[in-house]
Amino acid sequence: MANSPTGETVTERIVRVLETFGTDRTVQTTAEIGRRAGLPSSTAHRMVADLVECGLLERDEEQRVRLGMRLWELALRGSRALRLRQAALPFMERVQARIGEHTQLAVVENDETLFIERLSHPHAGANITRIAGRLPLHASSSGLVLLAHGPEELRERVLTGPLEAVSRETVTDPARLRRVLADIRRDGVVVAPGSVETVSTGVAVPVREERGRVIAALSAVLPRGAPTRHAVAELRAAASAISAAIGAHGP
Amino acid sequence: MANSPTGETVTERIVRVLETFGTDRTVQTTAEIGRRAGLPSSTAHRMVADLVECGLLERDEEQRVRLGMRLWELALRGSRALRLRQAALPFMERVQARIGEHTQLAVVENDETLFIERLSHPHAGANITRIAGRLPLHASSSGLVLLAHGPEELRERVLTGPLEAVSRETVTDPARLRRVLADIRRDGVVVAPGSVETVSTGVAVPVREERGRVIAALSAVLPRGAPTRHAVAELRAAASAISAAIGAHGP
Repeated sequence: MANSPTGETVTERIVRVLETFGTDRTVQTTAEIGRRAGLPSSTAHRMVADLVECGLLERDEEQRVRLGMRLWELALRGSRALRLRQAALPFMERVQARIGEHTQLAVVENDETLFIERLSHPHAGANITRIAGRLPLHASSSGLVLLAHGPEELRERVLTGPLEAVSRETVTDPARLRRVLADIRRDGVVVAPGSVETVSTGVAVPVREERGRVIAALSAVLPRGAPTRHAVAELRAAASAISAAIGAHGP
Repeated sequence: MANSPTGETVTERIVRVLETFGTDRTVQTTAEIGRRAGLPSSTAHRMVADLVECGLLERDEEQRVRLGMRLWELALRGSRALRLRQAALPFMERVQARIGEHTQLAVVENDETLFIERLSHPHAGANITRIAGRLPLHASSSGLVLLAHGPEELRERVLTGPLEAVSRETVTDPARLRRVLADIRRDGVVVAPGSVETVSTGVAVPVREERGRVIAALSAVLPRGAPTRHAVAELRAAASAISAAIGAHGP
């Protein structure tokens, strides 16, 4: 529909424009957006004007461009992420209050781990994950849980693809990863020291919907070497409570 | 750019498609989307296919359509709402723990109050607001704070426009509203019993950025008749702490 000379749809180009924004780049000039999205200058100016007109982008006093509140609103109003996160938040807060570290909720998105909520204690240790941030599925404890319980095709795609080492200790050997995933399915938990950052240990458990399918991973990031038993117990209790809350309010 | 026969841009039509989703309508058929967006059937099918291809929409097993995680991710990664909300959340949690009711954070979006965060106690009273939900600026306590401290043009536009009564007690007389707004600027707080729901009282204070400009309203919704003094003190302390947190991390 409404294809450009390159055969790309307008929708694809809009996504490319939105993709130029990120956690560390919330304000850009139209020229920067065009360059980063690989669009001719006139196209970039027309698209940005269009997107500003619709409220998906906004201009500040200096005519620099940022994401619009309207985009945020449209994306959240009917979103599964928001519903899941709303169901999970009270229980995540309890975990957070009891273990005092980072507590996170993650789902699979396009073969990666997407973090949809994160609560942090002011004095908690290192943690590179961010809300709406991603990590490879085989790297973080959350990703390992999602990979262990995900569809067979997803697992095969990831295990036969390139396995990037996020830290020196990320497991990247497919045979060893298969054993880790089997252990997770048996134990219902993973404790992954150093797989994302040398100084931290990730602990994650599955969150199931009513029919038992795993829809998310609930995790805590602890300082390396800290005891994990208490965190595992808290995460398990919270995951059960979240499942019950989701079940009670429909899928 | 790429205008349709009706002169509408593709971007506008995409927004119209996304607008058909909402808190109470998270899954639709393509036919329903087309009908609600006022698009011809063939256009609706092509647009939905395009949006699914880019991940902004997703299909479930029954080919019904919902908002995509990719949309959520794009909207949040670089968003002011997320940054503000992340700065505010620890302090909102403290208010929440101490007063045990609803605690909310709101901004102005397109002349309305847009709620970007809400924490609720399981046993808290009635509250119709929702995350990514809206209310008229003159109705809720949050909106009154935003209106009192907003730009003069915004205030004039709202006060000279139609003033809808959300509840029987919403103030809709412009002269009386002007007095309410002047009081808010003087007192730095508003207590608004029954203005949204007869059974509740909204209490709201401004949240300022470093240079003093009001960028958000922090509010609590209490049962009607409950004492408000403690909530006002907690909200004020939290608003100051949020301002300091924003200032410390840049605007």
